Amino acid sequence: MRKVYLDNVATTPLLPEVRQVMLPYLGEVFGNPSSLHDWGDTARQAVEAARVQVAQLIGASAEEIIFTGSGTESNNLAIKGLALAQQNRGKHVLVSAIEHFSVLHSARTLEKWGFELSLVPVDKYGVVNPRDVRQSLRKDTVLVSIMHANSEVATIEPIREIAQITRESKVVFHTDAVATAGTIPVDVKELGIDALSLAGNQFYGPKGVGALWVRKGVRVMPLLNGGVQEGGRRAGMENVPAIVGLGKAAELAKASMAARMEHLARLRDRLLTELPAKIDHVVVTGHPQSRLPGNASFCVEFIEGESMLMLLNSRGVAVSSGSACTSRALKASHVLIAMGISHALAQGSVLFTLGIDNTPEDIDYVLEVLPPIVDRLRQMSPLYSKFTKAGKGGM
Amino acid sequence: MRKVYLDNVATTPLLPEVRQVMLPYLGEVFGNPSSLHDWGDTARQAVEAARVQVAQLIGASAEEIIFTGSGTESNNLAIKGLALAQQNRGKHVLVSAIEHFSVLHSARTLEKWGFELSLVPVDKYGVVNPRDVRQSLRKDTVLVSIMHANSEVATIEPIREIAQITRESKVVFHTDAVATAGTIPVDVKELGIDALSLAGNQFYGPKGVGALWVRKGVRVMPLLNGGVQEGGRRAGMENVPAIVGLGKAAELAKASMAARMEHLARLRDRLLTELPAKIDHVVVTGHPQSRLPGNASFCVEFIEGESMLMLLNSRGVAVSSGSACTSRALKASHVLIAMGISHALAQGSVLFTLGIDNTPEDIDYVLEVLPPIVDRLRQMSPLYSKFTKAGKGGM
Repeated sequence: MRKVYLDNVATTPLLPEVRQVMLPYLGEVFGNPSSLHDWGDTARQAVEAARVQVAQLIGASAEEIIFTGSGTESNNLAIKGLALAQQNRGKHVLVSAIEHFSVLHSARTLEKWGFELSLVPVDKYGVVNPRDVRQSLRKDTVLVSIMHANSEVATIEPIREIAQITRESKVVFHTDAVATAGTIPVDVKELGIDALSLAGNQFYGPKGVGALWVRKGVRVMPLLNGGVQEGGRRAGMENVPAIVGLGKAAELAKASMAARMEHLARLRDRLLTELPAKIDHVVVTGHPQSRLPGNASFCVEFIEGESMLMLLNSRGVAVSSGSACTSRALKASHVLIAMGISHALAQGSVLFTLGIDNTPEDIDYVLEVLPPIVDRLRQMSPLYSKFTKAGKGGM
Repeated sequence: MRKVYLDNVATTPLLPEVRQVMLPYLGEVFGNPSSLHDWGDTARQAVEAARVQVAQLIGASAEEIIFTGSGTESNNLAIKGLALAQQNRGKHVLVSAIEHFSVLHSARTLEKWGFELSLVPVDKYGVVNPRDVRQSLRKDTVLVSIMHANSEVATIEPIREIAQITRESKVVFHTDAVATAGTIPVDVKELGIDALSLAGNQFYGPKGVGALWVRKGVRVMPLLNGGVQEGGRRAGMENVPAIVGLGKAAELAKASMAARMEHLARLRDRLLTELPAKIDHVVVTGHPQSRLPGNASFCVEFIEGESMLMLLNSRGVAVSSGSACTSRALKASHVLIAMGISHALAQGSVLFTLGIDNTPEDIDYVLEVLPPIVDRLRQMSPLYSKFTKAGKGGM
């Protein structure tokens, strides 16, 4: 059976070139970067070289990069660490309603610690309106966090415009760029932001490593206490092989970004146009233009996304429904709900996230196997039979 | 030049067998364990198999194991997570004065959050007296954390005796077993404890992974918020290759522990007896009997440990002086100071930590190169010339 992986939002495969540079660090080069001897020096140099590579991906300085264990840890460190470092100035935090749970739940934790949290709404495309950010800012606001792009609906947010507002108000602005860094151009100076999260496994780098960029001069309280690694901002021995891999993945992403984006967008566009043409009652979610190149997200009416996922899996195709991190919670996506999509429709969410290895034949295959799956599921759906009896209304 | 790595406390090399089982997870098996398709299933099964292996190493149940990104993260999660989960019952925490900084500084963070912290002293061998724990317990004590062994001076603590006391008082007891799990027998039921930290890189497993064991029924607040991974106790995508490697390292450690211990102790004993015989004014630190098998720790009078480390490095030998995590802080070890060793003597700390690949020839080499290094350094030491002029007094 053909195997088609279209769930690159959950994680991307490791590039062979990335794996190759990691291997020595799983072998003879095993030192602890904090050690003051040759074994330590070699490991430390590798970590510092990777720091430069990651900084270059986002137009930052190497010393501003903090290596973490995941995008989730980067977001936790950003939300909690930036807010706590400034709590003397105020205790109000602003995040969008469609943030990843590592941002949203970190902000909820801040509430337990005496902070106030405001959620900025989004429109039906999942776009945050900068004016809403401006209106929600208070004198005691110390942190704003709006994601660069939402990986569930692909919408890219107007980060530059929001950053102008936060800069005027002298409020620290963090963006979760886990969905964008390494995938589309990200330049922290151009964006005008103060902090940014990224994760290696989102652009063909290893699992177990992420980074938080914090602009020089902006304080962050460490989440992990202990040794003085990462400039005292993140204790714990550096995961050297993963960091080296992240560096290489960043270098490759930067070098081949334009070609990758073009390849992804071409395949993505086929899904966005041909799927609704082949299947009735399918809505594209997210912004029609301002979206990630490899991401085709839909809601299929009268169907459970999970069932679609399972049946596609039985045909060798991997997709997701909602975000992987919440897939086991089996709840309607908070992102879709925030966009005003009904609970019933949100249940039919299906998300195709393309990777650089996908081919036109992969798309042909999906366009061939999905329509009969949808038909089959709709035959079993009481909602659908009620609907068809009523005379085929619109959504 | 001969290369002799005697700094296994900083980190151990990865066993080839461990690397071997990790490789598929850096290649074709790349799924996210949270994904609901075959790619995810395969990754999840690998993680769950490793969970069983780690549980078996310490006599625990698999579902009690929380995978983390490092020993440091395990300790942070234990100290903060266990204390915060019980803060309604009280806000007093008790740790020993010689804990690793990931425990000590986490406890200091709790102080900022309104907790009170008491430090339990140690004797000149670095041993915690269980009676001191009993006397320091208060009605509002909610957490005691005493390390299983101190990696800097090798002393093994009377954990079972301390656990009896905490059990009687119904206080949660955590032990940092980063220095012992995978090295000497550790059985959580036999020890009678409630929580235990371990790290893969301490027993020939990978960097970037640790585990926290928490006894069923004991609550822990997550440190990282986000997805529902690890039973909602630690968000963030699982570092699958590292977790698989940790599992294998645990399995191998359990199978070959007795042989490894015997090998290490034989080499260690040579250092403990022959080094003081070859060099004047050398003190063994830590407990004479109750100590880790692969750890020979000394203070060399009239000398800076760092200089010794550098010169040994120039002869191809890796050792540490104090702990690697604090090596860049260049302060006298808090462990040695807590044991009543003077600042001057503590500066001369040197730590040989043996690994399973070390040979008798490695020990011969160290015993050959170290005495002239010490001589040379003492020639340059004003303290030493003052001392010799005064007529060679004792310590």
